[in-house]
Amino acid sequence: MNRYRVLIDANDEKGLVHKVSTVFYNNGLNILSNSEFVDKENDKFFMRSVVDGDIELDILKKSLLDVLPKSATIQVILPKKKNIVLMVTKEMHALGDILIRHESGELEANILAVISNYDKLESLVSKFNIPYVTVSHEGLERTEHEDKILECLSNYKDIDYIVLAKYMRILTPKFIEAYNDKIINIHHSFLPAFIGANPYKQAYERGVKIIGATSHFVNNNLDEGPIIEQEIIHVNHSYGWRDMQKSGRDAEKMVLSRALKLALEDRIFVYANKTVIF
Amino acid sequence: MNRYRVLIDANDEKGLVHKVSTVFYNNGLNILSNSEFVDKENDKFFMRSVVDGDIELDILKKSLLDVLPKSATIQVILPKKKNIVLMVTKEMHALGDILIRHESGELEANILAVISNYDKLESLVSKFNIPYVTVSHEGLERTEHEDKILECLSNYKDIDYIVLAKYMRILTPKFIEAYNDKIINIHHSFLPAFIGANPYKQAYERGVKIIGATSHFVNNNLDEGPIIEQEIIHVNHSYGWRDMQKSGRDAEKMVLSRALKLALEDRIFVYANKTVIF
Amino acid sequence: MNRYRVLIDANDEKGLVHKVSTVFYNNGLNILSNSEFVDKENDKFFMRSVVDGDIELDILKKSLLDVLPKSATIQVILPKKKNIVLMVTKEMHALGDILIRHESGELEANILAVISNYDKLESLVSKFNIPYVTVSHEGLERTEHEDKILECLSNYKDIDYIVLAKYMRILTPKFIEAYNDKIINIHHSFLPAFIGANPYKQAYERGVKIIGATSHFVNNNLDEGPIIEQEIIHVNHSYGWRDMQKSGRDAEKMVLSRALKLALEDRIFVYANKTVIF
Amino acid sequence: MNRYRVLIDANDEKGLVHKVSTVFYNNGLNILSNSEFVDKENDKFFMRSVVDGDIELDILKKSLLDVLPKSATIQVILPKKKNIVLMVTKEMHALGDILIRHESGELEANILAVISNYDKLESLVSKFNIPYVTVSHEGLERTEHEDKILECLSNYKDIDYIVLAKYMRILTPKFIEAYNDKIINIHHSFLPAFIGANPYKQAYERGVKIIGATSHFVNNNLDEGPIIEQEIIHVNHSYGWRDMQKSGRDAEKMVLSRALKLALEDRIFVYANKTVIF
Repeated sequence: MNRYRVLIDANDEKGLVHKVSTVFYNNGLNILSNSEFVDKENDKFFMRSVVDGDIELDILKKSLLDVLPKSATIQVILPKKKNIVLMVTKEMHALGDILIRHESGELEANILAVISNYDKLESLVSKFNIPYVTVSHEGLERTEHEDKILECLSNYKDIDYIVLAKYMRILTPKFIEAYNDKIINIHHSFLPAFIGANPYKQAYERGVKIIGATSHFVNNNLDEGPIIEQEIIHVNHSYGWRDMQKSGRDAEKMVLSRALKLALEDRIFVYANKTVIF
Repeated sequence: MNRYRVLIDANDEKGLVHKVSTVFYNNGLNILSNSEFVDKENDKFFMRSVVDGDIELDILKKSLLDVLPKSATIQVILPKKKNIVLMVTKEMHALGDILIRHESGELEANILAVISNYDKLESLVSKFNIPYVTVSHEGLERTEHEDKILECLSNYKDIDYIVLAKYMRILTPKFIEAYNDKIINIHHSFLPAFIGANPYKQAYERGVKIIGATSHFVNNNLDEGPIIEQEIIHVNHSYGWRDMQKSGRDAEKMVLSRALKLALEDRIFVYANKTVIF
Repeated sequence: MNRYRVLIDANDEKGLVHKVSTVFYNNGLNILSNSEFVDKENDKFFMRSVVDGDIELDILKKSLLDVLPKSATIQVILPKKKNIVLMVTKEMHALGDILIRHESGELEANILAVISNYDKLESLVSKFNIPYVTVSHEGLERTEHEDKILECLSNYKDIDYIVLAKYMRILTPKFIEAYNDKIINIHHSFLPAFIGANPYKQAYERGVKIIGATSHFVNNNLDEGPIIEQEIIHVNHSYGWRDMQKSGRDAEKMVLSRALKLALEDRIFVYANKTVIF
Repeated sequence: MNRYRVLIDANDEKGLVHKVSTVFYNNGLNILSNSEFVDKENDKFFMRSVVDGDIELDILKKSLLDVLPKSATIQVILPKKKNIVLMVTKEMHALGDILIRHESGELEANILAVISNYDKLESLVSKFNIPYVTVSHEGLERTEHEDKILECLSNYKDIDYIVLAKYMRILTPKFIEAYNDKIINIHHSFLPAFIGANPYKQAYERGVKIIGATSHFVNNNLDEGPIIEQEIIHVNHSYGWRDMQKSGRDAEKMVLSRALKLALEDRIFVYANKTVIF
C-alpha cells in the first residue's frame, strides 16, 4: 500500500471535488486529509489530499488527468526525503537551527551541501559531516561569482530546494530562473516594511514597537516574492538596532524552519505572487 | 437560488467525501467552501460545506440522508440571524463589546434580551433598546434563582445561544441540560489553569508571566466544557492581580466575541468534550 | 498628601538620578514607581516617577529646576481626568470601544465631543449623552473643511488629546501644528508597511500572512509620526481583503485604546520622531 | 575602568534610590541603566543598576552596605562568563539550541559538561568538544542515581547554573538543596496547567487551543518553582498530541534560551516563589 500527496490546481468550475473524490473512491483510496480553497478573485481552485491505497503513482495521475479540465496542474507525490542545499554568509542562527533539526531526524530532507561566500561557518557544518563549499566573491563580478556557485550546484542532482539561511547577497535573475520556485529566503523584516539593506537599522530609526521576519520564495524582484511565513517580536524604546537584530534572529530562524517544513511536506501552492498553504 | 451551510459528522468510512460531493454535483450545487477533518483516534469524520444552488433545504437534506451511513448527523442550515440572550453580572467590557458589534451590524444575531442578577448594567443596555431583565439572587436558593431565570428565558422563542458575558454565578445541571450545547461562557483564565474563583488572584500568587482567557461551551462540570477559543496577554512582575484583571478583560472580550462569531456562522462541531472548528 | 507624576527629560550627564532622588528625599516624598532610560545614541535622559507627599506642585517643580541642567524639561502632573475630543468618519469599532471604556469608568478622561464628517455615528454617540458634531466636507475645499473643524474645536477649552478613531481624511500641517503632539491616530496597517490608502487591499495584494495596526502621534507627514503601539493578527490565503479589514478592526481598536491609556497616564515621551514609554 | 551589575533587594523604605544613587554619584560612577520595582504587597524593594567607573568591587559593595538598611541584600557583579552544566535525557531540540547559541558566541557562558541518563545525545555534544557524561539510572534507586550525578557535578568548580534542557527525571529535595536557586528547568506546558507526566497528552485530551512552555527555577515541589518565562503556540483540532509535542518544542527551546540569557545577565531576582526580572 502506498501513501500519496495529491496537489491539484485548476480554473474553478462546478464538480471538481466530486471528480477528484470519485477517482479516489473508484480506485479504493482512503482519504487521510483533504483541503480545498477557491480564490474567488481569480476563479482558481486548489486542493491537497493525502490518500492511502494500492495503486501506482502513474495510474493515479492518469486517472485524475482523464477527468479534470485542461487547466488543471496535477502533482502526485510519494512522500520521501527531499534534497536541499543551504546557502549562508556569516550568521549561524538559521543554519544552526536547520542543522539541529536535521540531526534530530525531524526534517524530511537530505542536506546535500552548504555553500557560502565565506569560510566562517565551515567548522560548524563540518561537525555534521555535511559538505561545505566556500565560493568567495572577493575580486569577482556578481555574475562571475554566481556562475561559480551555479557550477558548484550543478554537482548536486535533483535539488528540490535551495534554502537561503541568511545568505546576504542579491541573486540575479539568471540564478533565480535556474531554480524557479525552488529558492526559499528569510528577509529580516516584516515584509513589505524595510525592504533592502539593514532592515533592523531602518526599523530602529522608525521607532517601531514590533520587529518581524518573513520567509518567502525568491523571484526576480528582491524581497518581493511570494510570502510563506511571517512572525514578529515585540520591542520597545530600550532596544538599539543591534538589540533588535539579536531578538530578530529568533523570529528569523522560526519563519525559515516553518517555511522549510511546509515546503518539504508539499503544502505550498504558489500563485499570483502569493502562497496557498494547507 | 439559495445558499446553505451543510454540517456533517459520521463514523469515518471510505467514500464519504465522494458521496457528499456527488449529491452536491448531481443537484447542480456549487461548492463555495469545503472543510473536512477526520479524528483518527475516534474514527470520526467532520465536514462543513457552503453551497449555492437551486434546491429546497429538505430535499438537499434528504438526498444526503439517502447516501450517508446511519451514524451520520446532517445539518442543512439556511444562514440567517440567530437569536441570542446575554447573561451578565456587573462587568461591562464583554457585554459592551457585543453590544457595539451588534449595533454596527457585524453580528449575525438578534439580541433578544440581557438578563442579570444585578441592575447595574441596565442603563447601558437600555441605550440600545434591548430588554434588560434583573433577576436578583438576593435571599433566594440557587435553584429558586435559576428557576426564575428559566421562567424569564421561556418568554423568548427559539433561543439559539445563551451567552454568559461575565455572568458570575455557577449554573446547575438542570439549567445546563435545558440549553444543552447552547451556552457559551468566558472563563477568565487560560483553562485548565486556575479553575474556580478569582483566577487572576490565583495567577498573581503563582507568579505567571502570561494570563489568558478561554471561551467554551458549558457542560455539567464548571469550567470543563469544550473549549472554543483561547487568547493570552503577557504580564510581568509589576502587575498586581488587579492589573492582571484589567489587562485580562481585553483577552476576555476577544475570546468571547470570536467564539460567538464562530457559533453564529455554524462553524463549530462539539465532540468528545472538544470542538472541531472550520 | 498629594500624588504627582514627574516626567523629566534632559541631555544625559552623570548624577541626574542622584539629583532627582535627592530632591524627592529632602522633600519627604515617597517614590511609588520610577523608570529611567538613556538614549545613548542621542545622549538623552528620560525619567518618570510617581511620588506621594505633602508638597505643593509648584514647589516640587521649582526644587527640580534648581538642581537639574538647563537642557531639562520638567513636568509635574497632578493626575486627573484629561479632556479629549474624538474624530471619526463612518466606522464604529474604535469609537465604540472608547465609548464603552469611558462608560465603564476605566478611562481617565472626559469626552468633550465627537466630531465627524458624516452623521452616521450620531445615533450611537448620542446614546451616551456626548455631543456629536457633524462637519460635512461636501462641497468644501480641504482647508475650508478643516477651518470649520478648528472653529468647532475652539469651543472646547483645555483639550489634552484629539483622538482620530478612524477619521479617514488627511490633516493639513496647519491643523496638526494647532494641536502639536496632541493628535493620536490609528493607521490600519503595521507601519511603515502599506502607507496611504486602503492598506488592507495592499496587504491582500502582497499576500501577507500577518496584518497589523499602529497607533501613533500625527505629525506633518501622513502616517510617519512617532509610533505608540503596534499589534498584529495572523491571516492566511483564505482571507480576502474585506476579511482582513474585518479582522484588522480588532487590532485597530486594541492599539488605539492602549495608546490612549498610555497618554492619559502620562507615560509617553516623544523624542526624535519616536516614543519612550514607561 | 570597570563595569558592574549591582543588584539590591531590601525591605522598602523612603530614600533607598536616593541612598544608592548618592553612593554611585559620590564614587564618580556613571549609571548606564537602572530599574526599580517595589512589591507593595510585601513592602519589598528591588533595584538593578549597571554602572561604569573607576572603583574596586569590594569598595563599591562596602559603600552600599554602609548606607543601606540591614534587610538589604547587595550583589555587585563583574560581568563575565558563567559556568553552566546541562542535564538532558533524549530530546535534542533544547540542548541543540543552547549548543548553537554557545558556538555562535552569543551566550555569556562556559558549558562545563552535559550530563544525561542516556548516551543518546553524546554524538551531538561531542561534535562541540564538550564533555558528555552518561549516568544511567538503570537498576538504581532514585537516590543512588542522584548521588552518582552529584558526584559527577562535584568535579566541576563554581557551577553557576544547572540547566535542565529536557531532563525527564524528578529531582529529590536533597539534589535541589545542593544547588538552590541554581537549577533552571523547562516544563512542557503553560504552568500551572498540566503539571506532571505527558502534559501534551493532557492538553490534547482537554481540547485546548493553545499549548505552552514554561521555564522556571526548580524548588522542592515539582513544577512549582518561580516562573521565569512563558510562551505559547496556537493549535487547533487537527493536532494530535504528538503534533502538539512537535510544535511545543519550539516554545520549549525559546523559553529555556530566554531564561538562561536572563540568568546569565543577572537580571532575575527570586522572591516569594516568584521572579522579578529587569
